[in-house]
Amino acid sequence: MKIAVLGAYQTKFGELWDKSLGDLIFEAGSGAIRDAQINKKKIQIAFIGNKLAGKLSDQNHLGALLAENLGINIPVVRIEAACASGGVAVAQSCMAIESGQFDYALVIGAEKMTDRLIDQVSSGLMSAAGNDEQQGGFSFVGLYALIARKYLQDFSASEKDLTLPAAKNHWHASFNPKAQFPFPVTVKQILASAVVADPLRLLECSPVSDGAAALVLANPRVASKNKTKNRVYITASSQASTSLSLSQRKSLTQINSSKLASQKAYQQAGLGPKDLSLLEVHDCFSIAEIIALEDLGIYQKGEGFIAERNGEVRLGGKRPVNLSGGLKACGHPVGATGVKQVVEIVDQLRDRAGKRQAKGLKVGLTHNLGGTGGTAVVHILQK
Amino acid sequence: MKIAVLGAYQTKFGELWDKSLGDLIFEAGSGAIRDAQINKKKIQIAFIGNKLAGKLSDQNHLGALLAENLGINIPVVRIEAACASGGVAVAQSCMAIESGQFDYALVIGAEKMTDRLIDQVSSGLMSAAGNDEQQGGFSFVGLYALIARKYLQDFSASEKDLTLPAAKNHWHASFNPKAQFPFPVTVKQILASAVVADPLRLLECSPVSDGAAALVLANPRVASKNKTKNRVYITASSQASTSLSLSQRKSLTQINSSKLASQKAYQQAGLGPKDLSLLEVHDCFSIAEIIALEDLGIYQKGEGFIAERNGEVRLGGKRPVNLSGGLKACGHPVGATGVKQVVEIVDQLRDRAGKRQAKGLKVGLTHNLGGTGGTAVVHILQK
Repeated sequence: MKIAVLGAYQTKFGELWDKSLGDLIFEAGSGAIRDAQINKKKIQIAFIGNKLAGKLSDQNHLGALLAENLGINIPVVRIEAACASGGVAVAQSCMAIESGQFDYALVIGAEKMTDRLIDQVSSGLMSAAGNDEQQGGFSFVGLYALIARKYLQDFSASEKDLTLPAAKNHWHASFNPKAQFPFPVTVKQILASAVVADPLRLLECSPVSDGAAALVLANPRVASKNKTKNRVYITASSQASTSLSLSQRKSLTQINSSKLASQKAYQQAGLGPKDLSLLEVHDCFSIAEIIALEDLGIYQKGEGFIAERNGEVRLGGKRPVNLSGGLKACGHPVGATGVKQVVEIVDQLRDRAGKRQAKGLKVGLTHNLGGTGGTAVVHILQK
Repeated sequence: MKIAVLGAYQTKFGELWDKSLGDLIFEAGSGAIRDAQINKKKIQIAFIGNKLAGKLSDQNHLGALLAENLGINIPVVRIEAACASGGVAVAQSCMAIESGQFDYALVIGAEKMTDRLIDQVSSGLMSAAGNDEQQGGFSFVGLYALIARKYLQDFSASEKDLTLPAAKNHWHASFNPKAQFPFPVTVKQILASAVVADPLRLLECSPVSDGAAALVLANPRVASKNKTKNRVYITASSQASTSLSLSQRKSLTQINSSKLASQKAYQQAGLGPKDLSLLEVHDCFSIAEIIALEDLGIYQKGEGFIAERNGEVRLGGKRPVNLSGGLKACGHPVGATGVKQVVEIVDQLRDRAGKRQAKGLKVGLTHNLGGTGGTAVVHILQK
């Protein structure tokens, strides 16, 4: 697979009370088109990843909204896959170009979450969990707490180890002006924050956020005429499913969809975990980053936390993870996250990531989950 | 384009209080797989069209639900495009096969609407309209009433003419055991029913329904080994957008997305409106069928109602429309409709439509709208 990325854009993530969902879609879409240096009339199809607009913005028909909003009379497809909505939207855009029917595609991920009371947001989010989990009164932090507790039981990690991804990602976010929380937080502060669902603490949880991100993708054939510098390509795009409910899984500490999607992606791109220079992974809760490092084949089962201890996943380390600040500190507007991860890798590979720019990069991977991993999407990007 | 349809299945449509959304998805999915005479393990990707599960069933993560439900660990993509969710899901399935990444795809459209109070259903449906229309207190019947009133003003149709699609479609449904209303209704009864939004009467409006439909699609290369008889192919698949709100349109009585999508579809299939043997069109309200016949290029502007008068769109006429009973009488579980339309054409082209079987069929067209036409999807099927 080889899909050219012509343009990439991310809005500020945060509590954006002065911006509607439509404003965010417009800013991200036009930002990516401007970055691609193409006329918007060239775009032939668009995809929008969003989870909650039906519930939180009384707006479900986002395809037509986007078309009206950006003034483009093209097919627009809304994708919903819980917190993986953005990643699946990127995958569908790649598929549209691969089908040969379309040369240029726009993909936007957007979410507006902070206009409603938290119980509405919370019940909206829980609609991504199994019915048994909903009926059982779980929240997502509760579900991930089960995973974290089991991890601590089975492996030699400590509660302090769980805080390391959050501390690292806050430090990365302190170099990212678009992050919701652009400031560092120490391990001590995290350990002192309130327990939300034992063993997970407040500062290990990703926030409720508004934001959007967008990409302009193209068939490499037509892209060769384009002027954008330091061209980046998507060389693998892969999605997999596992059971919706944790109760249906053989292991709590392994997410099969992540394994399946990444194995297929490595095969597509013709490379392996050792070839990766950097990653953006789905750290909705701190434990999720540790498990992702294992499921993606980078560390052995039960050893992901060691990478957090020895610093190799930090900026300056051998394989930085979540340079954007991750979901934890850059923010997690759910439908936007999967697209934003790709935007971050593109900016890094293009050497335009400012103070958080890593060096010597060749291959990046994004990993986006829906729910507790019922859906996983993996993309690989190369210069 | 040439995509083989291996299997097609529709559940009963209606007020199915003993069936959950999961039950409907399972019945439709396994029905289509059984009809295709393949092992479910052959399916490599699935799509599900649904609009309201987040609001009415507290379940948004339908990709993972479907994978768990049918026991298939494959990528599943949920598509949402208001009442065109099913049609867009079919289009995305075709695209997936055309991309060369997948040989077999399953597409399911499903909706569960009757478990909640009507005001929740109604506000859920209105999330497919423009914000100005929602703020203005419109319902969808109100929006289509504006279109109908303008049509009566501009052209020589009467209020009685508006009833003709509904009467015809009820008559067709009387031959369809899967229809929600499998009984005839006379023009006199329609005219005597309550005015919901002038000039539209109760019996001109499609109902609130539960139901699902599914298709198994395949690359013709692999399909040649399959045993299903009277093979049908999708030869065109096309989607278009126009503005979300009626207020942004130049004409109330013409839906540009229908025109754009059908023109592109005719071009793809290399044929024109005159080649069509039968159609399933989006008759959410009676006026919508009349306008569809015009936008699809079959009748001149302002003359669609004449086809309803002279009977050529009835079973036994030269080009029957909505032999299933249409949205009006077969029912309108919104996410299922676009898939069910394709199922009906497949059953007709395969000569297995029972008492409503039309004769001498070659080419069928489906036309599925979202909202007041913000999204339109057209498929062409041939033997």
